[in-house]
Amino acid sequence: MIAPPLHDLFEANRDRYIAEWKDLLAFPTVSADPDCDRDCAACADWLVRHLRQIGFDARPIPTAFKPLVFAERRGRPGKPVVLFYSHYDVQPVDPLDQWLTPPFQPTLKGDRLFARGAEDNKGQLMAALKAMETLIARNALDATVKVIIEGEEESGGRGITESLPRLKEFLKADILMVADTGMAGPGIPTLVMGLRGIIHLTVLLEGPRHDLHSGLHGGVAPNPATELARLIATLHHPDGRIAVEGFYDSLPAPTDKERTMANAVPFTASAYLEQTGVSPLAGEKPFTPAERLGFRPCLEVNGMVSGYGGPGMKTIIPSRASAKISARLAAGQDPRLCLDRLIRHLKQHAPAGLALSIPEQGVGGAGFKLDTDSPVVRKAGTILESLMHRPPVFLWEGASIPIVSTLSQVSGAEPLLVGFGLEEDKIHAPNESYSLEQFRLGYLYTALFLSSL
Amino acid sequence: MIAPPLHDLFEANRDRYIAEWKDLLAFPTVSADPDCDRDCAACADWLVRHLRQIGFDARPIPTAFKPLVFAERRGRPGKPVVLFYSHYDVQPVDPLDQWLTPPFQPTLKGDRLFARGAEDNKGQLMAALKAMETLIARNALDATVKVIIEGEEESGGRGITESLPRLKEFLKADILMVADTGMAGPGIPTLVMGLRGIIHLTVLLEGPRHDLHSGLHGGVAPNPATELARLIATLHHPDGRIAVEGFYDSLPAPTDKERTMANAVPFTASAYLEQTGVSPLAGEKPFTPAERLGFRPCLEVNGMVSGYGGPGMKTIIPSRASAKISARLAAGQDPRLCLDRLIRHLKQHAPAGLALSIPEQGVGGAGFKLDTDSPVVRKAGTILESLMHRPPVFLWEGASIPIVSTLSQVSGAEPLLVGFGLEEDKIHAPNESYSLEQFRLGYLYTALFLSSL
Repeated sequence: MIAPPLHDLFEANRDRYIAEWKDLLAFPTVSADPDCDRDCAACADWLVRHLRQIGFDARPIPTAFKPLVFAERRGRPGKPVVLFYSHYDVQPVDPLDQWLTPPFQPTLKGDRLFARGAEDNKGQLMAALKAMETLIARNALDATVKVIIEGEEESGGRGITESLPRLKEFLKADILMVADTGMAGPGIPTLVMGLRGIIHLTVLLEGPRHDLHSGLHGGVAPNPATELARLIATLHHPDGRIAVEGFYDSLPAPTDKERTMANAVPFTASAYLEQTGVSPLAGEKPFTPAERLGFRPCLEVNGMVSGYGGPGMKTIIPSRASAKISARLAAGQDPRLCLDRLIRHLKQHAPAGLALSIPEQGVGGAGFKLDTDSPVVRKAGTILESLMHRPPVFLWEGASIPIVSTLSQVSGAEPLLVGFGLEEDKIHAPNESYSLEQFRLGYLYTALFLSSL
Repeated sequence: MIAPPLHDLFEANRDRYIAEWKDLLAFPTVSADPDCDRDCAACADWLVRHLRQIGFDARPIPTAFKPLVFAERRGRPGKPVVLFYSHYDVQPVDPLDQWLTPPFQPTLKGDRLFARGAEDNKGQLMAALKAMETLIARNALDATVKVIIEGEEESGGRGITESLPRLKEFLKADILMVADTGMAGPGIPTLVMGLRGIIHLTVLLEGPRHDLHSGLHGGVAPNPATELARLIATLHHPDGRIAVEGFYDSLPAPTDKERTMANAVPFTASAYLEQTGVSPLAGEKPFTPAERLGFRPCLEVNGMVSGYGGPGMKTIIPSRASAKISARLAAGQDPRLCLDRLIRHLKQHAPAGLALSIPEQGVGGAGFKLDTDSPVVRKAGTILESLMHRPPVFLWEGASIPIVSTLSQVSGAEPLLVGFGLEEDKIHAPNESYSLEQFRLGYLYTALFLSSL
């Protein structure tokens, strides 16, 4: 352990770390946007060069989609092998007009760096890389560390998914470190014990060949906007349960221990309202919010577009209407099966006279849960407690890192999910940011955990 | 009557008429878009100059919104006074990418002129003005003709509505000619016997202060997109009836004569499908499509916007969702009352945990019906039959010209609605157009009707 001087090392190199973090953030790596393909490739190249500079054997791995970055630094024989996973792609930036500073011009304001990806995941990645750099430079890294960074975590992860079978040997590891999660609150050390899976689709209703005059046709022509709304309304029961037939099949109930641990995380409706602007009123009533996020699926409309949305009125029957819908799946639910059942539901409830299609669909990965008694989990918990001076909380988070369950299977490694994100980081939203204090925590935790192996 | 040479006069002046029509169409007079304010004023000025050139005493009338254009040409004493109504504003142009030629660069292809407003209403207006020009030049106009052209027909008509009380004396007339309607089909002379009223609003649901990560909040935070869909779904019963309480109060049933005349217009589901791309499946089942359009209200979603609509996925819970909703009202329904009841319905069904507001609302005017035995209607029918060689059909059209019922009350004039629009003109949609043949019919009908008085 090189614990005492780590704080000083961080402070001594702080400005350089920020500069490098900014360089990484300047790449507009929106994986959902084909216009960003070249920037994604450039970012992957930058990461390869950077990993080499800090002591890794690194290379890009081309895929049919965005390139992966793979790096390895051999440790001492007999020591554990760690596989560190991250992603260099980011969410789209719109609504762009709500950003106070340009999303790809990283801007430091006080303790916070603002940019798309500032936290998710370039900030957490950079903090970990700087920890590895420190350990390598001071010869304090005995474990073998492998790094895999994908470019499509935010948009389906096709590149890494199709590549995993041929990378099986490269990726063999004991521990799968993932720094893409958050803390239960500021200063609360947090171990993520589970993540939800994700499936998504776009549903499109097409009717009139062109927008129709709503007077000449209103009450006669089927209206795709109205009918899309009615179709979406069939997806949930009034009590919040998902109404898609068979969606809950084979979903196990949480154990009493899991429920107790999950509900131990501080949560109040008033704090949630303060934090988000809404009360935690959605979802299935018999479950607490922590249980809904940790052990239950949800079905969300992520976007809906039809007809005219500008100023004033346009009295039309729109020719088409579409919605983007995604579901988060609890551990135990089969993603392909759930997606098929959702599509079957939409088709069974398709409105008369309109053409329903599913122009986009995808399976992002299954949900999973960790063993509450794992020694690796306990070691990480001890380090977090020493660093943050309070015992960790255990979080079954509602988010997805689609590749983690698959990567864990392929590598044979046990996942370990520790991250330092906070709600105020506003990931996926305008004005994403990450504080230097969170960055520093990620740096210290990674260095302490890796040097303890 | 100067019937025989009119055809020749039209042919001799055809190219000049088209050039002037193009000049008028080049003004981007989208009244819903504040960016077009200056173009609307310029268009009004152009019309004043044009009306003076062809023999009218013309002037702009400023309002708190867009200017009106008023013109008068005194006829012989004792002859009827005709008030001719039209509008110089047009619908918005989006989706702009579906236009094959720019909407404000009028383009003649074969027999059709393509531009926003080509038919609605600049084409029909120009055809009538050219008829008046011909009659004045040949001293064949005995009736007094007054012309009123507004600039907000497509967006609520506020300017003319607020000005009507002080224009009462100017507008006194016997016959209110309106050329803003269509034909039941190509070559079918058509008298519009009724129009629907219109009300509209925008409903907005606001929830989270910013878009939320759909994993970290899915199943806990209320989703404005999902809830907007559920709210819209409450507006109709499964059988197509409007579910807003009290919406049908004081709505009279059509008379047997009206039903018979309305259903005499040729209509088949297969022709409708061919024409629009959809089957006539919407609305109230106990009524035929002609009855639904003519004597029943409808409630339509004209646009719906929430969250992400670009390529790929964005896994958010959107912070807001909005819909533009309008209703067409049958003769007998009180617009203000219906709007109030719609708003009350939306508020009563507002989802828990989200803020519902109505940022825009408006009453466009009431619906009305004409007397099936009016002598003016009969005269127009005779002229149409002589021109088009078949008896006219009588149409209770579903569209609205919000101002007609009010203008009829203020002026004391009996409305007369004859127009030459066709479905293929695609008014309110991309690639609006109007054929030279339709333009010519409007010219001939107006000249024959006015010279017969």
